[in-house]
Amino acid sequence: MHQYRTHTCNDLRASDAGKTVRLSGWVHSKRDHGGLLFIDLRDHYGMTQVVVPAGGDLLEKAEHLRVESVITVTGEVVLREGGQVNPNLPTGEVELRASDIKVQSNAAVLPFQVAGQENYPEDLRLKYRYLDLRREKMQRNLKLRSEVIASMRRRMNAQGFTEFQTPILTASSPEGARDFLVPSRLHPGKFYALPQAPQQFKQLAMVAGMDRYFQIAPCFRDEASRADRSPGEFYQLDFEMSFATQEDVFGVLEPVLSGLFEEFTPEGWAITEGAFPRIPYADAMRDYGSDKPDLRNPLIIRNVTDAFAGSGFGLFARIAADGGEIRAVAAPGAASRPRAFFDKLNAWAREQGTGGLGYISFDESGEAKGPIAKNLEPERVAQIREICGLKPGDAVFFAAGKGDEVAKFSGQVRTKIATELDLIEKNAFRFCWVVDFPMYERNEETGQIDFSHNPFSMPQGGLEALNTQDPLSIKAFQYDIVCNGVELSSGAIRNHLPEVMLRAFEIAGYGPEVVEERFGGMLNAFRYGAPPHGGAAPGVDRIVMLLADEPNIREVILFPLNQGGEDLMMEAPAFVEPQRLKELSLKLDLPKPKPGAKKAEAGAGAEGKPAAP
Amino acid sequence: MHQYRTHTCNDLRASDAGKTVRLSGWVHSKRDHGGLLFIDLRDHYGMTQVVVPAGGDLLEKAEHLRVESVITVTGEVVLREGGQVNPNLPTGEVELRASDIKVQSNAAVLPFQVAGQENYPEDLRLKYRYLDLRREKMQRNLKLRSEVIASMRRRMNAQGFTEFQTPILTASSPEGARDFLVPSRLHPGKFYALPQAPQQFKQLAMVAGMDRYFQIAPCFRDEASRADRSPGEFYQLDFEMSFATQEDVFGVLEPVLSGLFEEFTPEGWAITEGAFPRIPYADAMRDYGSDKPDLRNPLIIRNVTDAFAGSGFGLFARIAADGGEIRAVAAPGAASRPRAFFDKLNAWAREQGTGGLGYISFDESGEAKGPIAKNLEPERVAQIREICGLKPGDAVFFAAGKGDEVAKFSGQVRTKIATELDLIEKNAFRFCWVVDFPMYERNEETGQIDFSHNPFSMPQGGLEALNTQDPLSIKAFQYDIVCNGVELSSGAIRNHLPEVMLRAFEIAGYGPEVVEERFGGMLNAFRYGAPPHGGAAPGVDRIVMLLADEPNIREVILFPLNQGGEDLMMEAPAFVEPQRLKELSLKLDLPKPKPGAKKAEAGAGAEGKPAAP
Repeated sequence: MHQYRTHTCNDLRASDAGKTVRLSGWVHSKRDHGGLLFIDLRDHYGMTQVVVPAGGDLLEKAEHLRVESVITVTGEVVLREGGQVNPNLPTGEVELRASDIKVQSNAAVLPFQVAGQENYPEDLRLKYRYLDLRREKMQRNLKLRSEVIASMRRRMNAQGFTEFQTPILTASSPEGARDFLVPSRLHPGKFYALPQAPQQFKQLAMVAGMDRYFQIAPCFRDEASRADRSPGEFYQLDFEMSFATQEDVFGVLEPVLSGLFEEFTPEGWAITEGAFPRIPYADAMRDYGSDKPDLRNPLIIRNVTDAFAGSGFGLFARIAADGGEIRAVAAPGAASRPRAFFDKLNAWAREQGTGGLGYISFDESGEAKGPIAKNLEPERVAQIREICGLKPGDAVFFAAGKGDEVAKFSGQVRTKIATELDLIEKNAFRFCWVVDFPMYERNEETGQIDFSHNPFSMPQGGLEALNTQDPLSIKAFQYDIVCNGVELSSGAIRNHLPEVMLRAFEIAGYGPEVVEERFGGMLNAFRYGAPPHGGAAPGVDRIVMLLADEPNIREVILFPLNQGGEDLMMEAPAFVEPQRLKELSLKLDLPKPKPGAKKAEAGAGAEGKPAAP
Repeated sequence: MHQYRTHTCNDLRASDAGKTVRLSGWVHSKRDHGGLLFIDLRDHYGMTQVVVPAGGDLLEKAEHLRVESVITVTGEVVLREGGQVNPNLPTGEVELRASDIKVQSNAAVLPFQVAGQENYPEDLRLKYRYLDLRREKMQRNLKLRSEVIASMRRRMNAQGFTEFQTPILTASSPEGARDFLVPSRLHPGKFYALPQAPQQFKQLAMVAGMDRYFQIAPCFRDEASRADRSPGEFYQLDFEMSFATQEDVFGVLEPVLSGLFEEFTPEGWAITEGAFPRIPYADAMRDYGSDKPDLRNPLIIRNVTDAFAGSGFGLFARIAADGGEIRAVAAPGAASRPRAFFDKLNAWAREQGTGGLGYISFDESGEAKGPIAKNLEPERVAQIREICGLKPGDAVFFAAGKGDEVAKFSGQVRTKIATELDLIEKNAFRFCWVVDFPMYERNEETGQIDFSHNPFSMPQGGLEALNTQDPLSIKAFQYDIVCNGVELSSGAIRNHLPEVMLRAFEIAGYGPEVVEERFGGMLNAFRYGAPPHGGAAPGVDRIVMLLADEPNIREVILFPLNQGGEDLMMEAPAFVEPQRLKELSLKLDLPKPKPGAKKAEAGAGAEGKPAAP
């Protein structure tokens, strides 16, 4: 018989009754019951009930066991009596009647309970992560993460992509203000950097003829925590392909994502099938008030500026005259809501820093109600009703203002109304591509032309567009993939032509010497025969969060840093011996302690408090 | 028709003749031939011959193309005439008659040729790695690497192992003199470290109940290059399992390795099947003179000390009397070799720093020859012949000395003789486990008891052995997996019991306070219920080197650092802006320039020259 186990704690069934078996696991819980001791024995795979018979040394030994101790139990599998069968447990038809118990490891008093559903402070959970991970939800989340990643690999392989490991010790990127630096001992005074993404390497792999690259790539960013990104390190499904159009990239990622989401969501969930909607950036801002539209929300924003221009409703008429816009969000069936509903939304709008949230509601006879309706000419009310497709019993809300501001606020209104009216589709993952991002934008402070997004994306129309079009009208082969309003990834067809790149930078005010100095490595590589190429890099952690329905990214990472970028279990980061720094040709240059600070080391007192929330 | 390609350069066959197709790729080579221009068009998948017809703009355009330019060719697939068929090329029955050529990217004059077999200096190849990688051997090697890793993952998954990502930004380990440190911007004066291996995390995953963990794990070591390990980063197939004996670990890894090697070696190669031989460390040193025995070598070292003790061959008699040993390595059939053969081996032995290499040879009649035989009593010669199983026509060589020294030298002799006589089995991968490593050894300088290998391995016999046995007689559940004389990995059943660990350290002279201070994190984790567990971590790069038959590890890594730890393509490591250091609360503390050094920055002049060879 194996020293530790003949079966896992999830294996035994009624058909095993009568067998002598051995199990090992953790003492999940203990119950005294009529002189017998019941132990729920837990391992990675499941749980089995152990019964320690009354009387004898074994019972005494078992009684002294603390929960979470590790034991090996040998005994006979017996059928539970009818009333004792636990239909919720795969092993619930049997129990293991212990004839021997060997303690493999005694547990001390726990800092928190593993069994049960109680919540504990996150820092305590992270300090004792090895206990926290024993809890059922964490085992499930981490298993899901691992399976999601394995599935991504399988799906990328099936499409002819090859996984390559790109360097982790590399050069600091020119825009790498948030690169982690790594001092080199062998090269005093010099530093490696950890990659924020393998962007340059994957493009170089294309120049090297690798054709279809992917990697579950570790990425590093030295910045404060965000809700959906761990401080420090995170993973992305990084991929790039040669001789590919934007549609080719979409054609690769769509089946990977829809297949993945189908694989890991419960039966009955709706997932975008086939080609995902492609929504031009301008349309997304117009119709959804966001470049991350949540397509589970059925509401479409409408432009009703014309209806208010020169109207009797002076506030909106003035905004329209002033070059602003009035946008409308329908609220189907909201007319029957009490006055408090409209007041609450108005208060919410003021909290967002706006003047409030005007509305018109239409009673069951179709008559328009509310302060705006009182001042607006009936034919204009009818025009709005037409534009927004409103029926008796509906209401409509208005966001007014200029340009991006009104677009974004109307997007917030759209989300708020749909949430309040419970219109957001449930049990669904709705994907879309946002495409045709502008290549350039005007910097509002300097008035200069800046790159909107990625300077390395190919401008639509190429060199000719750069040479002949108004820069602000040029679009890029740059796209985002969005799921349920969450951006999973940006991506682009890259600019692989040095002359187009130099011209693109020139428009943004960078001369060739600057470009050669900062990006000479890539530029040179492109001078030796570069294929057209493009790709994307969906965030792995973010996808797992969606699939696990976890709003906190640390719930889907094995050993995460806390929000302050600290590993509370291993105590990192930490001070190091001066000798270690000397070997690296470095000295600390700590900020001076503030006057009146109590401790000499107060200068380092910011630990645990990231610079930004 | 697709903008770039309807087929890859490896797709077209005779059955495609008559089709109009489009290919994209690199201009591998060009040949003028009777007014026609032939282009070998290459992509990741293969090569296709393109013919540009005589006359017209197309020919002129094509004639100006530099090799390695990227082009898209549209045209008709035509059958090659009988004599022109190239049977070595999968597409060799056809060629593509170009009707249109579009240049996607012009290549500048190359720093070295991609086509052809010429060798170039490694630093040049690394600087232009994206060109170097286009060469056929590199494409093959990197593809192999990727497939090997995918196969490892598949095989580990199939055995119920789950891949988890462990942190890359973590704490410096107590023995971490070669850890890369990463300064934290958010925690001034504190440092993360990059893991030399995920050892602690994988053990903590076991404590967390993950049962069977693996990872293709990036590991980092700030040390000079070695032949079989890249400076900087390397990958290992890191795995760990709970409730496992040493035999269980072997049972997991054996089919993974033999399956992997069978998958990736040519038909007809011999690979150890079933359970690999388990060789106790003491036996390995005795029989093979090495703890990394190459089992392709059929020679076994024999101890012939008794035959020389008190004999007429004074030199060996004195060594035997002095507590030394004489070990013999048979050289089958070597008696017929000329005198120069024996002289050469003697000279080789002197180069190794020994006194020389004595021998006896037996002529076809069985008579013993050579200087030793002259002085050795016939019955002693017969004894040696018996021990070593020698036949007429064989010779035998002797290594003499003390303890480890003679063991190691006899191991070198074994390798040398087998190599000279061409006895090493060809086209074979021979695996073995070396087991039962001693837990402790005596430090020859201090006379103290030290750990031999890993202080965290479980001593055989547990606490009782520690409390009752001579420490030097205690063995550990510590093992190596060896293939063809190359150590692929160490591994161990870990010590998961705090009281056993404290006692083990006590024997090596470390009090509990030291252990708690240095290893408190792990020790504490083991106090909350730890399963018995063990594992190993075969080097991925090393396995790929064996399979690709490459002695240089950089030939199997996409973008490796050079031997000096530099990325010549991305120019890392590099100096950084003072502002970046200020943000990290660091100052440079460079070694003073040596007097007479020419440049102010001479202190940093060691770059490119690692501290140790």
